[in-house]
Amino acid sequence: MMYQSVQRGSKLKFPAVFYGGDYNPEQWMVDKNWREIWQEDVRLMRKAGVNLVSLGIFSWAALQPAEDHFTFEWLDDILELLAEQQIFACLGTATAAQPAWLSVAYPDVLPVDETGVRHKPGVRLNYCPTNEHFRRLGQDLVRRLAERYRDHRALLLWHVSNEYGPACYCDHCAMRFRGWLQQRYGRLDELNRHWITSIWSRTYTAWEQVQPPSSIGEHSLPALQIDYQHFLSDMNLEGYLGEVAILRDVTPHVPVMTNFHGLTRHIDYFSWAQHQDIISWDSYPRYNATPDVAAFHYDFMRSLKQKQPWLLLEQTPSQVQWHQENPLKRPGVMRLQSYQALAHGSNSVMFFQWRQARGGREMYHGAIVGHAGHEQTRIFQEVAALGAELKLLEPALLETHMQARVALMMSWPNWWAVENRHTPSRHFNYIAELQHYYRALWKRNIAVDIISPDQPLDNYQLVIAPLFTMVSEEQGAAIEQYVKEGGTFLTTYFSGMVDESHRAWLGGFPGPLRRTLGIWVEEFDPLPAGKTNTLFCLQETDDWSGTYNCEHWCDIVQLEGAQAIAIFGQDFYAGRPAITEYHYGLGQAFYVATRPDAAGVDALMKMLQSRLGLTAPLQVPRGVEVTRREGKMVAYFLLNHLQEAQCITLSEPMRDVLTQYIYEQVIQLPALGVAILIPVYQ
Amino acid sequence: MMYQSVQRGSKLKFPAVFYGGDYNPEQWMVDKNWREIWQEDVRLMRKAGVNLVSLGIFSWAALQPAEDHFTFEWLDDILELLAEQQIFACLGTATAAQPAWLSVAYPDVLPVDETGVRHKPGVRLNYCPTNEHFRRLGQDLVRRLAERYRDHRALLLWHVSNEYGPACYCDHCAMRFRGWLQQRYGRLDELNRHWITSIWSRTYTAWEQVQPPSSIGEHSLPALQIDYQHFLSDMNLEGYLGEVAILRDVTPHVPVMTNFHGLTRHIDYFSWAQHQDIISWDSYPRYNATPDVAAFHYDFMRSLKQKQPWLLLEQTPSQVQWHQENPLKRPGVMRLQSYQALAHGSNSVMFFQWRQARGGREMYHGAIVGHAGHEQTRIFQEVAALGAELKLLEPALLETHMQARVALMMSWPNWWAVENRHTPSRHFNYIAELQHYYRALWKRNIAVDIISPDQPLDNYQLVIAPLFTMVSEEQGAAIEQYVKEGGTFLTTYFSGMVDESHRAWLGGFPGPLRRTLGIWVEEFDPLPAGKTNTLFCLQETDDWSGTYNCEHWCDIVQLEGAQAIAIFGQDFYAGRPAITEYHYGLGQAFYVATRPDAAGVDALMKMLQSRLGLTAPLQVPRGVEVTRREGKMVAYFLLNHLQEAQCITLSEPMRDVLTQYIYEQVIQLPALGVAILIPVYQ
Amino acid sequence: MMYQSVQRGSKLKFPAVFYGGDYNPEQWMVDKNWREIWQEDVRLMRKAGVNLVSLGIFSWAALQPAEDHFTFEWLDDILELLAEQQIFACLGTATAAQPAWLSVAYPDVLPVDETGVRHKPGVRLNYCPTNEHFRRLGQDLVRRLAERYRDHRALLLWHVSNEYGPACYCDHCAMRFRGWLQQRYGRLDELNRHWITSIWSRTYTAWEQVQPPSSIGEHSLPALQIDYQHFLSDMNLEGYLGEVAILRDVTPHVPVMTNFHGLTRHIDYFSWAQHQDIISWDSYPRYNATPDVAAFHYDFMRSLKQKQPWLLLEQTPSQVQWHQENPLKRPGVMRLQSYQALAHGSNSVMFFQWRQARGGREMYHGAIVGHAGHEQTRIFQEVAALGAELKLLEPALLETHMQARVALMMSWPNWWAVENRHTPSRHFNYIAELQHYYRALWKRNIAVDIISPDQPLDNYQLVIAPLFTMVSEEQGAAIEQYVKEGGTFLTTYFSGMVDESHRAWLGGFPGPLRRTLGIWVEEFDPLPAGKTNTLFCLQETDDWSGTYNCEHWCDIVQLEGAQAIAIFGQDFYAGRPAITEYHYGLGQAFYVATRPDAAGVDALMKMLQSRLGLTAPLQVPRGVEVTRREGKMVAYFLLNHLQEAQCITLSEPMRDVLTQYIYEQVIQLPALGVAILIPVYQ
Repeated sequence: MMYQSVQRGSKLKFPAVFYGGDYNPEQWMVDKNWREIWQEDVRLMRKAGVNLVSLGIFSWAALQPAEDHFTFEWLDDILELLAEQQIFACLGTATAAQPAWLSVAYPDVLPVDETGVRHKPGVRLNYCPTNEHFRRLGQDLVRRLAERYRDHRALLLWHVSNEYGPACYCDHCAMRFRGWLQQRYGRLDELNRHWITSIWSRTYTAWEQVQPPSSIGEHSLPALQIDYQHFLSDMNLEGYLGEVAILRDVTPHVPVMTNFHGLTRHIDYFSWAQHQDIISWDSYPRYNATPDVAAFHYDFMRSLKQKQPWLLLEQTPSQVQWHQENPLKRPGVMRLQSYQALAHGSNSVMFFQWRQARGGREMYHGAIVGHAGHEQTRIFQEVAALGAELKLLEPALLETHMQARVALMMSWPNWWAVENRHTPSRHFNYIAELQHYYRALWKRNIAVDIISPDQPLDNYQLVIAPLFTMVSEEQGAAIEQYVKEGGTFLTTYFSGMVDESHRAWLGGFPGPLRRTLGIWVEEFDPLPAGKTNTLFCLQETDDWSGTYNCEHWCDIVQLEGAQAIAIFGQDFYAGRPAITEYHYGLGQAFYVATRPDAAGVDALMKMLQSRLGLTAPLQVPRGVEVTRREGKMVAYFLLNHLQEAQCITLSEPMRDVLTQYIYEQVIQLPALGVAILIPVYQ
Repeated sequence: MMYQSVQRGSKLKFPAVFYGGDYNPEQWMVDKNWREIWQEDVRLMRKAGVNLVSLGIFSWAALQPAEDHFTFEWLDDILELLAEQQIFACLGTATAAQPAWLSVAYPDVLPVDETGVRHKPGVRLNYCPTNEHFRRLGQDLVRRLAERYRDHRALLLWHVSNEYGPACYCDHCAMRFRGWLQQRYGRLDELNRHWITSIWSRTYTAWEQVQPPSSIGEHSLPALQIDYQHFLSDMNLEGYLGEVAILRDVTPHVPVMTNFHGLTRHIDYFSWAQHQDIISWDSYPRYNATPDVAAFHYDFMRSLKQKQPWLLLEQTPSQVQWHQENPLKRPGVMRLQSYQALAHGSNSVMFFQWRQARGGREMYHGAIVGHAGHEQTRIFQEVAALGAELKLLEPALLETHMQARVALMMSWPNWWAVENRHTPSRHFNYIAELQHYYRALWKRNIAVDIISPDQPLDNYQLVIAPLFTMVSEEQGAAIEQYVKEGGTFLTTYFSGMVDESHRAWLGGFPGPLRRTLGIWVEEFDPLPAGKTNTLFCLQETDDWSGTYNCEHWCDIVQLEGAQAIAIFGQDFYAGRPAITEYHYGLGQAFYVATRPDAAGVDALMKMLQSRLGLTAPLQVPRGVEVTRREGKMVAYFLLNHLQEAQCITLSEPMRDVLTQYIYEQVIQLPALGVAILIPVYQ
Repeated sequence: MMYQSVQRGSKLKFPAVFYGGDYNPEQWMVDKNWREIWQEDVRLMRKAGVNLVSLGIFSWAALQPAEDHFTFEWLDDILELLAEQQIFACLGTATAAQPAWLSVAYPDVLPVDETGVRHKPGVRLNYCPTNEHFRRLGQDLVRRLAERYRDHRALLLWHVSNEYGPACYCDHCAMRFRGWLQQRYGRLDELNRHWITSIWSRTYTAWEQVQPPSSIGEHSLPALQIDYQHFLSDMNLEGYLGEVAILRDVTPHVPVMTNFHGLTRHIDYFSWAQHQDIISWDSYPRYNATPDVAAFHYDFMRSLKQKQPWLLLEQTPSQVQWHQENPLKRPGVMRLQSYQALAHGSNSVMFFQWRQARGGREMYHGAIVGHAGHEQTRIFQEVAALGAELKLLEPALLETHMQARVALMMSWPNWWAVENRHTPSRHFNYIAELQHYYRALWKRNIAVDIISPDQPLDNYQLVIAPLFTMVSEEQGAAIEQYVKEGGTFLTTYFSGMVDESHRAWLGGFPGPLRRTLGIWVEEFDPLPAGKTNTLFCLQETDDWSGTYNCEHWCDIVQLEGAQAIAIFGQDFYAGRPAITEYHYGLGQAFYVATRPDAAGVDALMKMLQSRLGLTAPLQVPRGVEVTRREGKMVAYFLLNHLQEAQCITLSEPMRDVLTQYIYEQVIQLPALGVAILIPVYQ
């Protein structure tokens, strides 16, 4: 059924929810019964409803045991076995870990760390991202794979490398870095001008003097640190694109991607996204993360290619072994998290991994088929039950997507700038600050896109940019235009501090946002850990009132047109603005001069929701998440994150896709329960 | 008196409790009055009752100031001085620290760390354990020492090196490691098969690719890490045996040993014990350790050569300077700890060190003769008083040993496996877990042997194997046989997980223990720090009742014949087995699926004590320790660890060796008091 | 006005309080409007009352862009611009950070760390302090600067390098270290004898074997560690003196100094002070430091050249960015801290820095002219107001100094010895212990000098030497003489432990202080963190009574003439002496065998104050600081560190220099207020 229903081409069209996981059959070839194990694997896959497996991701050594010796036969066999069962392969290019022989033959493949020490062979992603030997040999393998399997009926999708992230500081990287800087700055004196190297006599007088940052060398130039992060992202991308070019050449009909994870600090996913035919995500929230954390990442992935579905490519069915603490997922949690991904635009539910490894670092990482080796386990039963359930989803549902009128602005350069260790506070956590605002919107079931400052804003009623410290002239102008034309913009303390080269904005903070916000931030007061101030709402209304704690930082703001809607309650700046509002053009701009506590941010979002008429897809009790996917049809995803059943009142009759039951007015969701509701009269 | 009473031969026969300490007279040869200091030393030794000193342990530089120049004369002198006073020497082979000239002449003697950095000269034990130059030069010195002093009347015992433990990752070690692996696994594909190198493309295709583990290289293969620990233990042992062979050749009548300490994580004392003519131990419990901690280590040392006495070779009379916190031993504590060693089978009480050093790292480490240099100190007086008291012990007492019917199973490979950092929990502490069970038995004054899983079990009524994670087929079979024949076996969570090559047991945990235990561990839930569950006893009796907290880990157990005798009280596995019991053959097997708190383990031990009729040597109040030594005679050691006097009722009249007083019915032990009781009518 | 009033010559004579800050005009030459920025700088300097700037401190790259190319023109220009406005320059020798070309051309300029890794170019103070290339090139630049500006009317003072402190462990340093040791010890066997290398076989048999200490090599010899610290201080001093010699040669009329900061652990300021024409200090107390901390450092700097004024060379007007937490200075705090420096003998108030940097590590460090670039800021206004106020101070005030009858003894070797990690306690903090005693005196407004043990004592009524662990025979004798002749001496636990080579004093602690103190410290008991004992005063009087907590350490003291004036309340040494007093010759000596809490030290100081008749300059409420400067005139500085106004009763009419108001009897100081009072009838 599956095979014939899939439409080939560089864009994936989904005949059903893709369901499956990472499959590493080569691990079992050391067992004398390996053929039976493979047979058992496909039998159990059928039983679990699997239709897609990620294959060959770490198979380089198995495919090429020596530089001049290739062994594709086992992969032929397993692809054939899968194909017989109409199971698709998301086929790895196998370049995430080079074989031992390669590291020995080409020792400069191994990365060098900040202190100049070359690493030794072992583990994975353990290579220099600019190394030519690595690229040549990797690309050679990729071409062979592509040519061999170009027409294989099991081949659905290329999976390039895995969870990119190598970093290196070797001489070759230093040389490439200089070229990258020449592209960016042109002449050396422009580099000196942008990095302000005159401080501490750091002026470069020849390009050869420019070196990567180092904990035992140059670590006093934030601009160098940030540019090197950027460079590393670009070099990894260049390596990725080298493989992609071959795949697009040989198999233009097969989509290509690599899986995102983390978030990874030195891989700028915004710049990578355009080179992905489909976005995929490895989801590993900590056991005690609130459910908005997974939602944040799901929305992030969804936003990278808006209106296109994405793939949940990895999650654990039970537990991992590499977090600091690794308790089991409680019964129902895996199912709920899986539907949460669908609710946020994923069209797949996949796991790492199919069969639990017998050794190695991740041997205790959860799997669908555990060490016991059979299906009589809670985990297998839960996976199989979900697999069966997912088959109930109608295909039209897979041609829908989420729409958001609110955007949260994020950028990797901001991340690098905010958390560079020379800022006035050691307590910055950029992602946590984004999530602090995201969480308040999520609680209100207001859909949010996560966008880069370089994306168009005109689709949004509200744009929120916390800790927007690095702002270019152009970005500032775009925001100004957006507000002038009626948009609502909110930003916070430590924004508009530096330009794109990390030079302080002169003339008054927040630099290019100052006119739009109608304020001048004269001083800032980073608070010691544990110290708080208070924030009093002014001009109280039904939607804006109260007193809240705030922490981390307080700006001393001079009003330049804006008015204070909240003031500080303590310290020598008591009574000075804590939150300002400015009507500018047709729009309005808010500045939050501190870090309000959760209740404070919630109050702010309540006020903005009311002002802008932002609504949730359905009215639900707190703790119940609801999203709306639309396109070929409209569907509401209801997710009860609470341990008690919850009743939701519907405004129109709806049918639950999972039960086919029609609810006229009220639906009761059990604890951790899920419903996918379709209006009966749509 | 002493000299004539000692029976020469490779087994030591004790004419009296050996009493003394480390003596480093060469430290004082830089003083112009050194001859007077030496004279004063022996005068004070006589006064303190010293009959044995450890000599020459760090004297390499003093004995061989250049490769071709030896200076034994001072050692001749001091040995003569000691002999005149009938004081024995435990003579060091002086190889625990090489001289500076040696490190300069042979720089590859210095060890290389995991990151490839060769260490610099200095400190002690700072050599590569496989280095040929070190061995050649060390053995040359050992032969000269042995030949020079073979017939010296002061020579009692050889003390090889000191507190072994060097680790190295140099190319020579890598080469030796490959040879070690070839011994263990034969062909390279067997190595690949056992280490499961197919994961992450780690397959080796040539032996040269195999390298030691490294924090900047291969750190993803637990099996490699564990094998390397094993290899390091073996290489150190090989170095030790190189010296031993010479000593046995030249002085076959003189026993040979090295001192154990720590416990040292990468020295497997079980495999070393067979090469010791007598076991010796350096005892340094932390100031706030409960008294069972010293007892645990004493019993450990005692168990390494059962029925043979061992030597307490080092302890501080007052304080050390190298713990995080170094308060004084309170008056009476040193005496109590000394008798505790005798109570657990030691036939010596020795100290580090005789005369306090004037410089160096340990200059503030306590000593019998402090920097003041005279005997008018509390410490000297306490030592001298104990020395006088120990002379009261009759010789027959030294030909006794402890008997235990309970064994605690421990193995170094288990230690390495349990604490390897890729397990699902970061909170494993193998030794602490063993001590958790030991403590409950100790409180009940039940004698315990600490044994390896490869030792015979038939002498024991009860075998306890906490965190027995690495179990071979053979070990599993031996335990099964033991239970079938009537033994009682108890093990805990995270047992039976991997085979001897650290491959997960397939088919169901706890692998080869599963049939014996009558259970299947389907899942495990590592608890975050601070989270607890509850354990409810079922089938309550007088000896088994109550509710206890448990923490760290909960297994989800399926019963396969066993029955639950306690269940969990919380979480989704509330009501599922927490402790199981299985009658198998003539015996019984218990499984503890979590870490009960101290009260919980105590309840378990109470139940087992009652079931198996395990008894304490005498009935004593809690806080009083009692052991029984038997052989040539029977003696009871009573140790009051409390700050208040305690009364003990005797079932028969006994004589206290220390006071010669005969107690008919009741003996009162003062705070920190000791008695050695001998039945009057034995 | 300024220029003509300054008296040239190697000793600075102050026509007014020097006021200004670090000025780095070369940072702005990358800006196209740099000439306007410079013009604006001098305009604003005039407005702020600036009369002195520190110039060129990090200008090496700007002055010498290539080894054979010098560019002094910009410095000519800015000096001219300053001179036009009668602003002086404290001219840097620019050698605190070498240019990039230098590190590339002479790679051995870069320092090597303890593990043998050579650092990479970047940051500042990143050079080997013994490197010949660095010295040659640095001195060449210094000579050119000196010759070019020798007669410039703006040149007031040479500022050599900046905040010295480089450390290195390279082969050249090792070679120089051996030479340094030969100077100190002569023959190698004397080195062995003093370092007690016989321990652990560390005896050196050739000088080449002696290496710097290393965390991966020799780290077991405290004497080596301490001597290496001493050597590093001397090598840095040698580098400093190389520059000084040139400056004294070319510009004998211009005073020379380098700025002190920290305190820096491996720069012995006592030995450096004699080579400074004036002492200068960079003051950066943490935001939550009590005001005595700044006072302690001010008094330290003042004491280095008694009766001579010193310079407060750097402080931040607002905040720094490099502390762990960097809140703003509250309004009034900068002014108060500035006057506090004057109160303790400074004749300047200067800031880092004039104009805030646009990039680099310290771009968020506070400045007088912030990123906004104009004077309409709180910070600028506060600075300008203070500048105006300081002009009110009459010149005679600058020819006064403080007098103290109490000395606190401090030495760098003691610091190294006390905090060497092989002591019996991990909780030693030498500087904190000094401040513990200083604070009690400061609260009583008793003036204190901080002196080295090698300075004359006869000027003092009371000498306090906490943690005086390293005492030479000569130092002990000097103290004995001092007490015999009527002095009062107080020392504490862990004193008199080692001689100047870190050999334990034999015969009884506290070694050479024992006779003077009339005690013998038989044992010491380092207390675990959190554990306390109690201290009971004996022979209670009005000035000596109460019970206090003590912590960290308790000595067990035997009285040898002294009597206990306080005893311990707990533990097995309850009732034993905790504080002793001994009348010896005409004087008296106190020993404090523990660390009393703040109240305990306060009680001790109260008793000593009463006994010795030590008085505060004026009677003031607690929290108000008062000092007295005398010389050409007498002035009282009153500083209210409290948040509430305080009234002070005067014994005679006084005029406040800052207001010219005459107070007959009572002056009210506002919160954070300051007054400089001059007796009307002086």
